Amino acid sequence: MKVYLDNNATTMVDPLVVEEMMPFFSDIYGNPNSLHKFGTASHPAIAKAIDRVYKAVNARDSDDIVFTSCATESNNWVLKSIYRDYIVNGDKNHIITTEVEHPSVYSACKALEEDGVKVTYLPVNSQGIVEAHVVKSFITDKTALVSIMWASNETGMINPIKEIGEICKERGVLFHSDAVQAVGKIPVDLQDIHVDFLSMSAHKFHGPKGIGALYIKNSQPLSPLLNGGEHMGGRRSGTLNVPYIVAMGKAIELATENIEEKMASIRAKRDRLEDALLELSDTFVIGDREHRTPNTILISIKGVEGEGMLWDLNNGQIGASTGSACASEDLQANTVMLAIGADNELAHTGIRLSLSRFTTDSEIDYAITHFKKSVERLRAISSSFAKVGPTPGGESKECELHFH
Amino acid sequence: MKVYLDNNATTMVDPLVVEEMMPFFSDIYGNPNSLHKFGTASHPAIAKAIDRVYKAVNARDSDDIVFTSCATESNNWVLKSIYRDYIVNGDKNHIITTEVEHPSVYSACKALEEDGVKVTYLPVNSQGIVEAHVVKSFITDKTALVSIMWASNETGMINPIKEIGEICKERGVLFHSDAVQAVGKIPVDLQDIHVDFLSMSAHKFHGPKGIGALYIKNSQPLSPLLNGGEHMGGRRSGTLNVPYIVAMGKAIELATENIEEKMASIRAKRDRLEDALLELSDTFVIGDREHRTPNTILISIKGVEGEGMLWDLNNGQIGASTGSACASEDLQANTVMLAIGADNELAHTGIRLSLSRFTTDSEIDYAITHFKKSVERLRAISSSFAKVGPTPGGESKECELHFH
Repeated sequence: MKVYLDNNATTMVDPLVVEEMMPFFSDIYGNPNSLHKFGTASHPAIAKAIDRVYKAVNARDSDDIVFTSCATESNNWVLKSIYRDYIVNGDKNHIITTEVEHPSVYSACKALEEDGVKVTYLPVNSQGIVEAHVVKSFITDKTALVSIMWASNETGMINPIKEIGEICKERGVLFHSDAVQAVGKIPVDLQDIHVDFLSMSAHKFHGPKGIGALYIKNSQPLSPLLNGGEHMGGRRSGTLNVPYIVAMGKAIELATENIEEKMASIRAKRDRLEDALLELSDTFVIGDREHRTPNTILISIKGVEGEGMLWDLNNGQIGASTGSACASEDLQANTVMLAIGADNELAHTGIRLSLSRFTTDSEIDYAITHFKKSVERLRAISSSFAKVGPTPGGESKECELHFH
Repeated sequence: MKVYLDNNATTMVDPLVVEEMMPFFSDIYGNPNSLHKFGTASHPAIAKAIDRVYKAVNARDSDDIVFTSCATESNNWVLKSIYRDYIVNGDKNHIITTEVEHPSVYSACKALEEDGVKVTYLPVNSQGIVEAHVVKSFITDKTALVSIMWASNETGMINPIKEIGEICKERGVLFHSDAVQAVGKIPVDLQDIHVDFLSMSAHKFHGPKGIGALYIKNSQPLSPLLNGGEHMGGRRSGTLNVPYIVAMGKAIELATENIEEKMASIRAKRDRLEDALLELSDTFVIGDREHRTPNTILISIKGVEGEGMLWDLNNGQIGASTGSACASEDLQANTVMLAIGADNELAHTGIRLSLSRFTTDSEIDYAITHFKKSVERLRAISSSFAKVGPTPGGESKECELHFH
């Protein structure tokens, strides 16, 4: 059996999604910007895809939703164009983000710092959550943008986006949220919650890699990142990737229709897995379930190196992660665990397990069995665990960390 | 019969390309940055795709080829990062390009002008070609970049890229070429020709829309446009679009292997079509065949509005264009025809016909018949043609325009 538990890194494209986009490779292949039938033949499908994305996040007709090549592009676009429009060509000088953002926000902010922008990287609490009052306390008259992820890719923890949105609105500061780990996993209602710019990525909800979108409230101005042939109303140039646009529309519809039911089903499996793993001594799960996306577990197993565990799971045909796939090749300590106060050794013990609607009960059974055996085996050969030994009466818990 | 003669706008994805990418949607779907087998399973296919792109343009191991979401991204990346690296953070202030570039270069240059960059838009000669001595005469010590397309999307005319490359090399000025209309249509040998940065797009050679690449000579520095998870060696972040990378590799191999044979076959059909259309009185084809990509015809039919012609062809199931699809929705006069000296009325008479290796002889026959009938019909109802009448003894020609 193969068990894929790395759905926060990427997901399998739903075969229904593949089916829907297939005609747009070799049959309806014209450039939608062309005036002839080969081009216009794709228009109804594109319009349908756009409608589906609007519906999924409850956007209004007066808002813009622009397809991009990925959320990394969406995030870079917002940050760099806010820099151009409000800092270089305006009177602002400050951007607020967090210590635990995805690298596409974090690194773009680092690049903007080189260009002279003042960036505040907000801390998170012991649950890994950015608290709204902290955001409020750092906003100044010079703040051009607040950029805070909706949910964490590493922990699944959900930030108080509604409260933060209200604060930004009150203070007249633009608010961007990287909602890559929220859209398709939990309800995202942009009529209920105030966000100026929202980034999405299809490959996190069973669409293809290489297509994302940016929601722009009230179609407000934002310089393009990609200038050119005035595609998408001049917002984002580049020939429309028709198959993937169609795919993203289908994928977001499948992910968000009856989302409560889907969440309940995934949550039940996730909780069963989590409960079983917490039976192991000296294990911790980061963040309470109530504030977490229903598919994610970031578990720390004392005395077991994350990379070793990953290797062992991999040999058992189980795909898991030590954290963001976008940072996994460099084998660093989990940044979120460091941010919430874990020491370096502990931050190397994190294993992220992320489910999807395709995860089955028998896969969960298999994963539980294999995971427990792996931990036993690795603890038996772990020098650090042998030296310290299990915590006397060591109880496992699902709660916040209080290491330092 | 349906006849698609708009292959400079976009192409049908070759079914062999579709076949090769299919497994990477729902079978081998892991994130290639992940450490587990679900992720690493795609590595051989990605490596193969990269090799194929290197081979197609004869790049060396010491060069970089970075996948992007499209040539619009590649072009914007070069222009905006040269701005950041050599103008904002250097002592240059000047970029040289042409009047007839694709909108993704032209508009990006316009945006850079707003940011204070001095941009020279070089004129073209009566064939629509940028002459090397003109490029040379505009280079100054403050020139950061010369950006000139390899071949024109509108006319197919091929610029003297080898000479321009030598001039840039001698003067120590960086040279970028948008080779979107060259790669896959004519040989592009980057060992023979000096180019620092070269943009490519898969959908122009029977790959999918939404994937392109940037060649970077000697892996020289260039700030990323998209910061993030350090994908592609930190050059371009964003989860790798594995299916499309695989597709681009296959497509470029199919387009460039035995390219001379493919060119000869396409050229024979194009020449037959062109010869037949030039039998009509008062028609002109822009640029001589020797300096033109073998698939392209930009023909002017006196007394026939391009849009009217397009409409008539469309009714006959023939897809053609009045110029760049990226500018076709705004019904402007053909910019290249204006640049080579046509007046506004004449610049509205251009029709671009662009073939591919999938164009058949019977499609050419059908197109000739329909095209001729359309011209007759439209000239019969054309007030401007009726007023002026056919040129006495009006001969059709394939040559430069000498209108003003």
